[in-house]
This record gives sequence, structure tokens and C-alpha cells, in this order.
Amino acid sequence: MPNQTVAVLGLGAMGSAITARLRDTGYDTVVWNRTAAKAAPHAEAGSRAAATVAEAAELSDIVLVVLFDHASVREHLEPIAADLKGKTVVNVTTTTPNEARSTAAWAAEQGLTYLDGAIMATPDMIGTPYSRFLYSGDRGAYDTAREALETLGAADYEGEDAGLASLKDMALLTAMYQMFSGFMQAAAMMRTVGVPASQTAGEVAGWLGAILPHTESFAAVIDDRDFSAGQSVDFTRAAVGSLITASREQGVSADFLEPLLSRLDELSATGRGGVNWVSVNEQLAIG
Amino acid sequence: MPNQTVAVLGLGAMGSAITARLRDTGYDTVVWNRTAAKAAPHAEAGSRAAATVAEAAELSDIVLVVLFDHASVREHLEPIAADLKGKTVVNVTTTTPNEARSTAAWAAEQGLTYLDGAIMATPDMIGTPYSRFLYSGDRGAYDTAREALETLGAADYEGEDAGLASLKDMALLTAMYQMFSGFMQAAAMMRTVGVPASQTAGEVAGWLGAILPHTESFAAVIDDRDFSAGQSVDFTRAAVGSLITASREQGVSADFLEPLLSRLDELSATGRGGVNWVSVNEQLAIG
Repeated sequence: MPNQTVAVLGLGAMGSAITARLRDTGYDTVVWNRTAAKAAPHAEAGSRAAATVAEAAELSDIVLVVLFDHASVREHLEPIAADLKGKTVVNVTTTTPNEARSTAAWAAEQGLTYLDGAIMATPDMIGTPYSRFLYSGDRGAYDTAREALETLGAADYEGEDAGLASLKDMALLTAMYQMFSGFMQAAAMMRTVGVPASQTAGEVAGWLGAILPHTESFAAVIDDRDFSAGQSVDFTRAAVGSLITASREQGVSADFLEPLLSRLDELSATGRGGVNWVSVNEQLAIG
Repeated sequence: MPNQTVAVLGLGAMGSAITARLRDTGYDTVVWNRTAAKAAPHAEAGSRAAATVAEAAELSDIVLVVLFDHASVREHLEPIAADLKGKTVVNVTTTTPNEARSTAAWAAEQGLTYLDGAIMATPDMIGTPYSRFLYSGDRGAYDTAREALETLGAADYEGEDAGLASLKDMALLTAMYQMFSGFMQAAAMMRTVGVPASQTAGEVAGWLGAILPHTESFAAVIDDRDFSAGQSVDFTRAAVGSLITASREQGVSADFLEPLLSRLDELSATGRGGVNWVSVNEQLAIG
């Protein structure tokens, strides 16, 4: 409902993009930033600049928190708990699942309505069809803020556990950074024979895009816990070992692959060399 | 040219798929396998079974080598160098680039025509539009065998250095295994809150597919060697550190991410915390 007033706490690149998008879609916006200078361009563009976090909260229906980290969230919200009463607090600052749960517990103690969120987009993607936000915690808070949140991107509600949005975000980012590490190493290997990284990027994108659906068959193995068929631990050990050798022979570090080889070695050493290598998934559980 | 006779040495899952495809597209095929029983179904289907590697070579124009590893290639080819004279030897056994170069050097000493290859497909993909082979080494050998090779899948010639096909293959497999590792960890993280791996697989495939084109912008940074803009080492260190914390808090090993964090720590410790984190690529070069 564009008749809601939304306060945005934190005007870094993401907070600024969020504010601009809300303003552009007809929301009354209030902004606050630790260094006030960052609020000036928003004030010129039609937002109201609040002098304090408390004032921002007072003026608004929804308080969108887009700060640096968990510590800064707690630092700025704890002193204004009274001012947040009756407001819908939506915290999209990047925090771990346990940090999100901790803030949700604090908010519950204070009688506040709290929703935790995770942003799966870069600032330039806000408001485009490629932008996606995950939310978890108070369902009522989600319902109240939903229309405003949907102007920013897809707004998926993950469940009552406030840590769920962060957990899913972090699981996906974990997969992303490992994919990027793989590209880094592939590009380094090909550069040793004069192939530019741009060419390798095209090759990697084509190959990984084609092979990505295979994760679904891995998932079926994981969910069924049937590791009796499929590519074996020992076959995979040999393959990954060859990759490590090849990379080093070309003068490129293969450290990124060592933890996977270690897991495969452990499985083989404990008599599981013949099982599906996807059993690595179960091995990741910390005793 | 289907009037060529192709010998396939090695009838594992891949050699069998290759033989069946060549036979189905009209090639006269000769098969040999260390344990002769595996040749029987091919003989029944119309291939000729050779009693020895030498006989297989004698009967054929092209000798396609699909053995277990580099050692088995050398073990079986070295004694029959005389029989391979005038034939086109195409070795698609998985070997490292230096192993491919070593076999090419041996073949050159023996006056043989040698092409090295790498298979970017699983046996069930042979002959489909999803099958791709890379080749490198003797260009004449490639031209002679090309039409037969193209029945198996796309047949890309990478260059005269016999190690190139293997190198590119291994660079792409390196990227693939790291992507799969990332999925394994993501699935393990989400299973701690009861989300089945099949659901995580769908999420991961969607997210990685969307983010994959970003490797092109990383590649431009790598090729231009301009690390002055973009996501910094220190930002990425904090992000990866959070992922490691989040994973461990959920009871899931974060070992797969440790080598990346180590590289970022090194960059930061040597005064490069403010540069683009893509500079990790250059850091992979072994002094």
C-alpha cells in the first residue's frame, strides 16, 4: 500500500537503491544514515531525512534496516525499542542465521514485530525481475509489509524460524563462491597456454550451464540415501587427483580442490571407495 | 567417411558407447578388450572382435583408444608401434596434459600419426547434441578422422600442442567439481532445517544459472589486470567468513570454503584488502 511510510536505516549502495525504488513506486520514504551527508541526495529527490534513528522510526509504518552488519543493527535498534513498538521492523542486513534468530528473540522480548530478510541481488538489480528477497520470522509482519517489499523484488516467505531466510541465502552464496572459485582456477589454468579469461568464461558458462541439472540426480541420491549406484568415490578420487596434478603441472595452485579430495580419501579409507561419491554430502555433517 | 574401419581399444562404458554409435552410423568397427567377454555383445551386433591389440590395429584405418588411464595406454600401444604405422591413432583416454604430451612425443619418435582427445560427455550422451569432444595434436590426424569423430559428438580442434584438449577438459572439470562441492554443502546446510536436497537442487540451479554470466565481468577484470574497482577482497573476506560461521553453526563442515578464505586473508595481509577480489585469480599462479 503506497500509503505506508517506509523508513530506511542505512544508505549504503543497497539502502540507497532500496530507498530510490520505494520512492519511485509512490512510497513516502524517510531516510537515516550514520553520516548524514548520504541522506542529502535522497532529501533532494523527495525523501524525508530524519535526524535520528528514533525520529525515523516515529515517522514510519515500516522500518527497513539495511545496515553494515549484525553488530550495527543491534547498536542502533536496542536504544529505540520503545519507538519501534507498533511498527513493522524488517531487517535485510546480511547476518548469519543465528544472528537473525538472536535479533528475533530480542524483538520478541521487547514486544516488537520483526521480520528478517536476505537480499539475493546487487543494488543495480533492485526493482528488476532479477531481484529476489527471502524473508522469515513473523508472518504478520510479512503480510503487512509484503506489498512494499514486492516493489524491491520477488519476496519469498520461508517460514517462522527467523534464521531461515539467512540460511537459504548463505547456502546459495556458499554454492556461488565455490562456483566462482572453480572459474578462477579454470581461468588460471587456461591462461598458462595463452587463452584469455574471457574465452574461458564463455566455455565455463556453457559447460556449467549444461551440467547444472545433474545436481537434481545427486539430490535424489541424497534424499533416498541410496549410494549403491552411480560414480564411485574411488573413480572420483582418481579424477580429482588428476585435476590437481594437471593444475600443478601447469603452475597453478590446486588448493581449492584439496578439501574435496580429503573427503574422498576419508571415505575410501573407511571402506566406502565403491559407494556413490555423492555420499560426500552426508560426510559434511559435523559429528 | 563410413568406408573407414575404426578399431576401438577398450570396452568400458565409454568404449562400448563409442563402438555402438560408430556401428549405428555405418562404420566398420573392430573391437578389443583386455577381458574378451566384453567384446561378445559387440561381435553379435556386427563388430569384428580382434584377438589382440595388434590385430585390431592391423584391421583398421583409425585406432580409437579408450582405456583406463595413461599407464594402460602406454602398456598396450608401445608393443605394437610397428602395427600402428600408417594408421590414425586417436587417444581419448582421460590423461593429464603432460601425459598427453608424453604420448604424443613417443608417437612422434615412432613415426606415428597421433591425436589426443578429451571427452566432455557421459556414455549415455555419445552421439547426442549434448556430447562434445576436444582434440589436439596432429592436425592431419584430426582431418582424417574428423568425420568419424563427429558422429560421436561435437569435435573441436584445440591446437597442435597435444596437451591442449586435456588441459581445457581438466580446467572445465575443475570448475565443475567445485560447483558440485558447493551444491553438496548447500544441500547439507538446508537439510539441517528439514529441506530436502531436491528442493535445494532446484534453488541452486536457478541461482547459479542466473549468476553464471557474472564470470564474464570477472574475466574482463582478469584480462585487463585492473583490480581497482568492484567487490573488494575485504568485503569478500567478511562475506565468506560469515558463510563459514553460518555453516558451522548449523553443524555443517565449511572446509570447502577455507582455501578461498586463506587466499583472501593473504591478499589482505599484504595490503591488497581494497582491491577487487577477482585478483585471487592471479594469486593462483605458483611462484
